[in-house]
Amino acid sequence: MEKKSFKYLEVHPDKIVERGYHPDRHQVSESLFSLQNEYSGVRGYFDEGISNTESLRAMYLNGIYDYSREILNTGYRGIAKRTHFMINTVDIFKISIVVDSEKLDLNHIKFKDFIRELSFLTGLYTRAFTWELNNGKNIKIKISRLLSMSSVQNAIQMIELQSDQIAKVELSMTIDNNLKQWGEQGYLQTENVDIDNGILVSKTTFTNQKIWTKMSVTGPVKANSRQANAAGFTDYYDLTLDAGQPVTFTRFVTTLTSREYKSSIDAYQHIEEINNFAVNYGFTNFLAQNHKFYDDLLKQSDIEIEGNDEDLQGIRYCSFMLNSTYHGYNQMNNLGAKGLTGEAYSGHAFWDSETYCLPFFLFNNLKAAKDLILYRYHTLGAAKARARDLDCRGACFPIATLNGEEGCTLWQHASLQFQPSTGVSYALFHYFNITNDLKFIKEYGLELLKEINQFLLDRGQFNQDQTKFGYYGVMGPDEFKMMVNHNMYTNIMAKFSFDFMLEMLEKIKTDEDNEIIRKKLAISDQFIADLKDRSEKMHILFDDKTKLFEQNEGFYNLPHIDIRRIPREEFPLYSHWTYDRIYRGDMIKQPDVLMFLFLLNSRFSHDVKQANYEFYEPKTIHESSLSPSIHSIFASELGKHQEAINFFGYASRLDLDDYNNNTKEGIHLTSMAAAWMNIVYGFGGFRSDGKIFSIAPTIPHRWKSYTFKLTINERLISVKIDHQNVAVSLSGSGLKLRIYDKEILLEDYYECRTRKN
Amino acid sequence: MEKKSFKYLEVHPDKIVERGYHPDRHQVSESLFSLQNEYSGVRGYFDEGISNTESLRAMYLNGIYDYSREILNTGYRGIAKRTHFMINTVDIFKISIVVDSEKLDLNHIKFKDFIRELSFLTGLYTRAFTWELNNGKNIKIKISRLLSMSSVQNAIQMIELQSDQIAKVELSMTIDNNLKQWGEQGYLQTENVDIDNGILVSKTTFTNQKIWTKMSVTGPVKANSRQANAAGFTDYYDLTLDAGQPVTFTRFVTTLTSREYKSSIDAYQHIEEINNFAVNYGFTNFLAQNHKFYDDLLKQSDIEIEGNDEDLQGIRYCSFMLNSTYHGYNQMNNLGAKGLTGEAYSGHAFWDSETYCLPFFLFNNLKAAKDLILYRYHTLGAAKARARDLDCRGACFPIATLNGEEGCTLWQHASLQFQPSTGVSYALFHYFNITNDLKFIKEYGLELLKEINQFLLDRGQFNQDQTKFGYYGVMGPDEFKMMVNHNMYTNIMAKFSFDFMLEMLEKIKTDEDNEIIRKKLAISDQFIADLKDRSEKMHILFDDKTKLFEQNEGFYNLPHIDIRRIPREEFPLYSHWTYDRIYRGDMIKQPDVLMFLFLLNSRFSHDVKQANYEFYEPKTIHESSLSPSIHSIFASELGKHQEAINFFGYASRLDLDDYNNNTKEGIHLTSMAAAWMNIVYGFGGFRSDGKIFSIAPTIPHRWKSYTFKLTINERLISVKIDHQNVAVSLSGSGLKLRIYDKEILLEDYYECRTRKN
Repeated sequence: MEKKSFKYLEVHPDKIVERGYHPDRHQVSESLFSLQNEYSGVRGYFDEGISNTESLRAMYLNGIYDYSREILNTGYRGIAKRTHFMINTVDIFKISIVVDSEKLDLNHIKFKDFIRELSFLTGLYTRAFTWELNNGKNIKIKISRLLSMSSVQNAIQMIELQSDQIAKVELSMTIDNNLKQWGEQGYLQTENVDIDNGILVSKTTFTNQKIWTKMSVTGPVKANSRQANAAGFTDYYDLTLDAGQPVTFTRFVTTLTSREYKSSIDAYQHIEEINNFAVNYGFTNFLAQNHKFYDDLLKQSDIEIEGNDEDLQGIRYCSFMLNSTYHGYNQMNNLGAKGLTGEAYSGHAFWDSETYCLPFFLFNNLKAAKDLILYRYHTLGAAKARARDLDCRGACFPIATLNGEEGCTLWQHASLQFQPSTGVSYALFHYFNITNDLKFIKEYGLELLKEINQFLLDRGQFNQDQTKFGYYGVMGPDEFKMMVNHNMYTNIMAKFSFDFMLEMLEKIKTDEDNEIIRKKLAISDQFIADLKDRSEKMHILFDDKTKLFEQNEGFYNLPHIDIRRIPREEFPLYSHWTYDRIYRGDMIKQPDVLMFLFLLNSRFSHDVKQANYEFYEPKTIHESSLSPSIHSIFASELGKHQEAINFFGYASRLDLDDYNNNTKEGIHLTSMAAAWMNIVYGFGGFRSDGKIFSIAPTIPHRWKSYTFKLTINERLISVKIDHQNVAVSLSGSGLKLRIYDKEILLEDYYECRTRKN
Repeated sequence: MEKKSFKYLEVHPDKIVERGYHPDRHQVSESLFSLQNEYSGVRGYFDEGISNTESLRAMYLNGIYDYSREILNTGYRGIAKRTHFMINTVDIFKISIVVDSEKLDLNHIKFKDFIRELSFLTGLYTRAFTWELNNGKNIKIKISRLLSMSSVQNAIQMIELQSDQIAKVELSMTIDNNLKQWGEQGYLQTENVDIDNGILVSKTTFTNQKIWTKMSVTGPVKANSRQANAAGFTDYYDLTLDAGQPVTFTRFVTTLTSREYKSSIDAYQHIEEINNFAVNYGFTNFLAQNHKFYDDLLKQSDIEIEGNDEDLQGIRYCSFMLNSTYHGYNQMNNLGAKGLTGEAYSGHAFWDSETYCLPFFLFNNLKAAKDLILYRYHTLGAAKARARDLDCRGACFPIATLNGEEGCTLWQHASLQFQPSTGVSYALFHYFNITNDLKFIKEYGLELLKEINQFLLDRGQFNQDQTKFGYYGVMGPDEFKMMVNHNMYTNIMAKFSFDFMLEMLEKIKTDEDNEIIRKKLAISDQFIADLKDRSEKMHILFDDKTKLFEQNEGFYNLPHIDIRRIPREEFPLYSHWTYDRIYRGDMIKQPDVLMFLFLLNSRFSHDVKQANYEFYEPKTIHESSLSPSIHSIFASELGKHQEAINFFGYASRLDLDDYNNNTKEGIHLTSMAAAWMNIVYGFGGFRSDGKIFSIAPTIPHRWKSYTFKLTINERLISVKIDHQNVAVSLSGSGLKLRIYDKEILLEDYYECRTRKN
């Protein structure tokens, strides 16, 4: 299906620029100009607000969440009765500006030279315009924001004002709790407004988490008053602008939460300290620190594209957002489908984290990758409880979660999808395949594998004559098939999980701590025998002649739905088709067979990949934003270069061009990781699941050259591809690598001809 | 699974008797001693109440219902967002008795000779006991209730008091709205308390239905006052009992509803009239009228059993309850799963009405049977709207309803089950097969068939190569399989529905009004061609060798669940197994293949029935109370007489002995119809789906003889079976009948040897 784009931003390699205000894109800009530093996320809402304009004014704090007011009324077991979600927290950037009795509101005033920018190099957000007052004066206004990447509890807002004539300014700065949840009642309660210290203490409704927010302001004048109300407090400033003389107010906001500070005393002590530090450190230093932060990451992860600045901007925006949202600050954090930029998907982490996002971090920020896996280790308790809910032992990781509990109240997803669990096994494998870090496997990996596999052993069933094992009543990645038997993704990834654990157990067999580990984890001989048995007997629906995997038992018998004949206005199908209808045909939502062929790429032949791609791709409607990138990667591998480009078309600029017409709800963070894979795994032909890493680059016609970087075991590899050559540089010790079909020992540089499209 | 019985009632052929109060059975007795007259139902609660005892104090009015306060929060299409249910209405029997300052409360007072009875011959309920006052006096109290079968808006309560010594009595009689819904807030609002006329006007919350309730009391003294409150009003009586002198108060309560009286003026006028009539007619006349009502029905429907009074009482209780609940008073009424005796299943009618209940009425009360079918005709509008919700044309009858709308908010039932729709087609067939009433088919039947079949045409799908038609993503009668393809019950009953309509169209082809009917119903040639095509191509999973129907595509591959090894304490499974687990094996909830083999019995060979019974029965856990009777019927047909008796064991005394431990929620009305079928179709071997009616009786060892009656086309047939002979008598013109394997023309009497078990 052809998608529609909405292009209104200027193209630039290192930033996004909105020149001239686009009121019809107001909420999209709020999403796109979001700042995130893993600790918090602030949408690019207008600090001063705007009248009669739909806006999602929001600041989120990672891990600050609440339970729903509604409790599901169901007598059935194993169904989550109450969801939880990331809540909208404290409005830290709220201001009001009145000049000569005229109030700043872009919906009412006259203004010119509006420009808004977000720099990928620093994370600096600026919005500037010239306000043409009714009385003929011109006020230049520039408002900047920064979330510190090094001192993440600190956010800085800078307000610069300059008038061409003398003018009277009334400025106020507010900290309050008045943000709404999905436009409705919020979940934050005020616990205390400490007017003396400029601290607002807030509390969530059901989870009893606390937030302390302190602001300090530096500027040309002191506040003439501070006023409190039920939701927070406001500082008021009066000043006179002299003609041509700029003035600057800088607000330093420090936000602490009970995730890190258990007691009020502790929080109070530290919030003063951290806020004082911020005021003293100052805006310029914070900006420099941020620059260093992104620069360090870019040195090892930047993608360059010559010949198409749109693509370049797109992929750099993706990298910037990924690095901003998650970089290994807190092992209890994860990546929500929308990051910290909107409430859609409730801030929940999905199996996207391991299967779509992890590779980006594995090769760009290994610490963050490790932390991402450790998130699952830290939430093992909840996953074990969930397995109990499903009448199984072991651990079942939730389909959607913030705190480790199942947050999805749709049983047909929560009880039938096991991609999150097998995804964790795959993540461990992927991490190990790159690092050979057996210590990590022994400390965390085997425990995760034991619990996941125990669940998978229990949840699986044998067929009538006990010869075939597999999963009945499941939903695979293709969520357009519900309650199917022997979904191949589920069966094959479960088998993979069993096999990988057996391999790891074999690896530590001669270790001195082998016995201790097995004892500690209660890995019995029977358990091992069961893993082997179920792996051997796993029911694989593969036809040697056609080379096809049947997506699930009976898939071939399903009625055919000609997806090209579905009218455009019937999308999204969930809103236009009766619910059960989407489940009754061979139409596919997103890669399922192709997904495991991608993850376990090196284990399958070219013929198998080709046959399955050709069979399944035409049935796929890509309702998930994660779908096109995987198809693009396959198309590249299979030499279908035009298809590869077509699928890539949406990937890196999905949000910048708002292809899905829903960017206003927040950016598609996990798709951004898929976009990165689309280049590195797709055009770059990189593969990381085999015994040896490999690349097999091709280059889209519209590019002159492109470069990507990977860090593998502390060795930085840079690959530059143009239409003639592939040039691979390495810093660090030698690395075995396959380039196209040739295996080499890469020392410091290697060059070969680029394979023609 | 062995079921546990709770026997506490005396065995008697014509009534149920509780001798001595059984507090632990309090709510069970409330259900069992319910009175019903189709118009209303009153549970056997203690008129005076009882402290510290769980009670469901309830009076229901057929068709008086409300919508739920909760509205389901779903963005998906085709899912009912709000349920509706029968509501608890007006407390018409509430009294309070104080004698010599001691208050009547069976939980506190001393009493003896408690006896409670409900007569199957009259529907008279009486409760009597002797109250031993603290001051040594003995008060005999007898409270009777009657719902009139002839003047259904009238209910009578009689209170008889007699003291062995002079005693002062304070009696009050209340009419109020204070009844609760499931023990929570009720749905009735008071619109007016008309204290002068003794009329309470009530209104439902969302449906805006009105109820007018008037009471008049005759007795030895007049009320000394009437007091009103927000929920109703109370009359107060003071009197002195003389030693040995009985006194009697009789309360006549008339209840009208806005279903029959649209305006208040109209209702007011009639309520006076009807209530006056009642007072004048008096208790004795009402009792006589009720006696006549039941007697008339029994003459043509009574079952007699010699040799086992428990079985006799059981089946007569069933007939009594069926005749009471539904007898053709109002075509907008139907039979709820619990009748008008409890709130479980929300008072909803299910497909049970056509497939389990209809035969009882077809052969005992043809007018009621016709009305039951017409209920579907009158709710065709809602069924058409429901089809639209499911992206289809035609009509889809709801899985659970009072007003014709879908009342089931579980999409996995409401959107996937089409038994209600094919059940209506079957009901039309069954009715026609007995009556040959082509007029009815032309007036109502064809329109129903057209709409049902249009839905079935639209909802069905072809397989990949367009050779096989059938239903994908459905749930058949076996609700332990969800989202299956080609459920055989669904496919075969859809084919049946197509074929029956084609047959009826063929029948009217030469009629003069053929063209008019086809035009009026928009039955095009294409539509007819489609019916033929889909019928021919209907996918039937039948193996000629094994004679087995596969319950659905892939059933044979499902994991085996050994149902004998499920611990008793895990039942009911819905409460003890995680929800999805019940769907993942070959365990069956209730007959599915066996159900269509029963309905279309004459079309299948003995071998087919035997093979399928032997294959499916051992996999069936009979979680539905409708299941054992069908299995008993098959067991009889297949000569498995011990099994037939075992399955029958629960059927006719399911509620009297509380086998399912949930009779307190209300009686299992539709199971009672199944119990009737168990005798007539099971032991009697009656079959009514073939070209010729047939009987093939056997007799359980524990019986000496049994007799059942059937009215077929105004001819009353009585069949008496003992261990020697089958004696068939007929009043009316001759009827072709097959007895065992012999076809006869029954004139007035026929006798043959009974087939040995």
